[in-house]
Amino acid sequence: MAHLAPELDIRIWPEIGDAAEIEYALVWRPEPGLLASLPNLKLILSLGAGVDHILCDPQLPAGVPIVRLVDPYLTDAMGEYVALQVLQLHRRDLDYRAQQQAEVWRELAQKNAGERPVGILGFGEIGQAVGGKLAALGFPVSGWGRRERTIAGFRTYAGAGGLSQLLTESEILVCLLPLTPETTGILCARTFAAQLSAAALDVFRVEPLPPGHPFWRHPRILVTPHIAGTTNPRTAAAIVLDTIRRCEEGRSLLNQVDPSRGY
Amino acid sequence: MAHLAPELDIRIWPEIGDAAEIEYALVWRPEPGLLASLPNLKLILSLGAGVDHILCDPQLPAGVPIVRLVDPYLTDAMGEYVALQVLQLHRRDLDYRAQQQAEVWRELAQKNAGERPVGILGFGEIGQAVGGKLAALGFPVSGWGRRERTIAGFRTYAGAGGLSQLLTESEILVCLLPLTPETTGILCARTFAAQLSAAALDVFRVEPLPPGHPFWRHPRILVTPHIAGTTNPRTAAAIVLDTIRRCEEGRSLLNQVDPSRGY
Repeated sequence: MAHLAPELDIRIWPEIGDAAEIEYALVWRPEPGLLASLPNLKLILSLGAGVDHILCDPQLPAGVPIVRLVDPYLTDAMGEYVALQVLQLHRRDLDYRAQQQAEVWRELAQKNAGERPVGILGFGEIGQAVGGKLAALGFPVSGWGRRERTIAGFRTYAGAGGLSQLLTESEILVCLLPLTPETTGILCARTFAAQLSAAALDVFRVEPLPPGHPFWRHPRILVTPHIAGTTNPRTAAAIVLDTIRRCEEGRSLLNQVDPSRGY
Repeated sequence: MAHLAPELDIRIWPEIGDAAEIEYALVWRPEPGLLASLPNLKLILSLGAGVDHILCDPQLPAGVPIVRLVDPYLTDAMGEYVALQVLQLHRRDLDYRAQQQAEVWRELAQKNAGERPVGILGFGEIGQAVGGKLAALGFPVSGWGRRERTIAGFRTYAGAGGLSQLLTESEILVCLLPLTPETTGILCARTFAAQLSAAALDVFRVEPLPPGHPFWRHPRILVTPHIAGTTNPRTAAAIVLDTIRRCEEGRSLLNQVDPSRGY
């Protein structure tokens, strides 16, 4: 950012100098109370697509708009990650790895992607891009979201009834939902009762995943350290600067968060 | 096949009765000499895309045409397998699995598919279909084959010089070549010197891969038991029957093998 916009006075926390001089806060998991300590804050920018790490601050200043990062580079990365994990589950990679360890040569029953319906929870910008990659691989893709919507090439569902139907129809489920009061715990015993045989997990309630947590050693769980869609400094810097310019010029903000909705 | 074409007299080896009555042989790794023992054979049909398992028979009857199986279902399966393995290498899955085993939470440097050129050796029907799936995931794809050809959306190379160039440009290499005298050993020390960090292997010189073979336990090698593109009885039966009908009606055969070329 300093390279792209040398006119900006960029300060790295905790060396931020006079708190009253800070107008824009670019954050990932800010310390609770930190944002409230900046009296002249104009805008809060999330360094990632999620904003639950900001909204969970009990002292979050109410009047300051929040913008989340929507970066096609990150969206692509997320799509690659999901494609990888869906293909791993689809092509029985866990079983083949176990066989390799035991030096077992055995062909396992298999079907093609076209016979393996995938459901995506969260079907906004990221969900649809991910769905596009899965569809290109041949998977029939359905999407579920908060609102009813029609999207060419996909079956879409909404609401509690729609969720049951999506679960019934899907053999692999992808959860891309933002963490909000409405979505917390949506993947629960009732959801999993549908027939859960394996899981690939990238995001956890507590991060890093604590040592000794049973997920680490579970033979049917793939753990990755929240890297499905990481922020790319090169592409993200340009987007952040554009957001700051829009704000300075009084133009409407893109990807502004609705705190009541939670994302 | 019996269901689709009840008029056919289908015999399963070794219960084939009078060898002189056999007109069509549908084979996968036939015993050397078996085909030569069928005096009235009209056509040999491979049960898979490869035919090296037939051509290696020193007693192969010279005048009998050979047809390989070209089945879109198998081609799709192959594309899914390659997409899985390429994504695993691209997204450092081996490293993340090792980290999981050690309960290590660490983000590793990553780039997007668009920054990871993939080269495909063997750019015929299967190679191009596989390339299409990889391109849909965002990978820049180049293809190398025996003959020069121009294919929209891909860089293409041919010949020995083209091979060096493809190797220089590619970070991940996919080998889909038929096994012929020309391609045997094409992946050799000189090829690998380019910077080899991991491999996913599905096909081996000796199958099953013998117990104790170092590939089984190598931490940077993924072994699968020749399942990238397995023959699907449902779809293959219809294609085989169509081939037999064409032969009966004296029409030209599709996907006939040129023994001098080796595929």
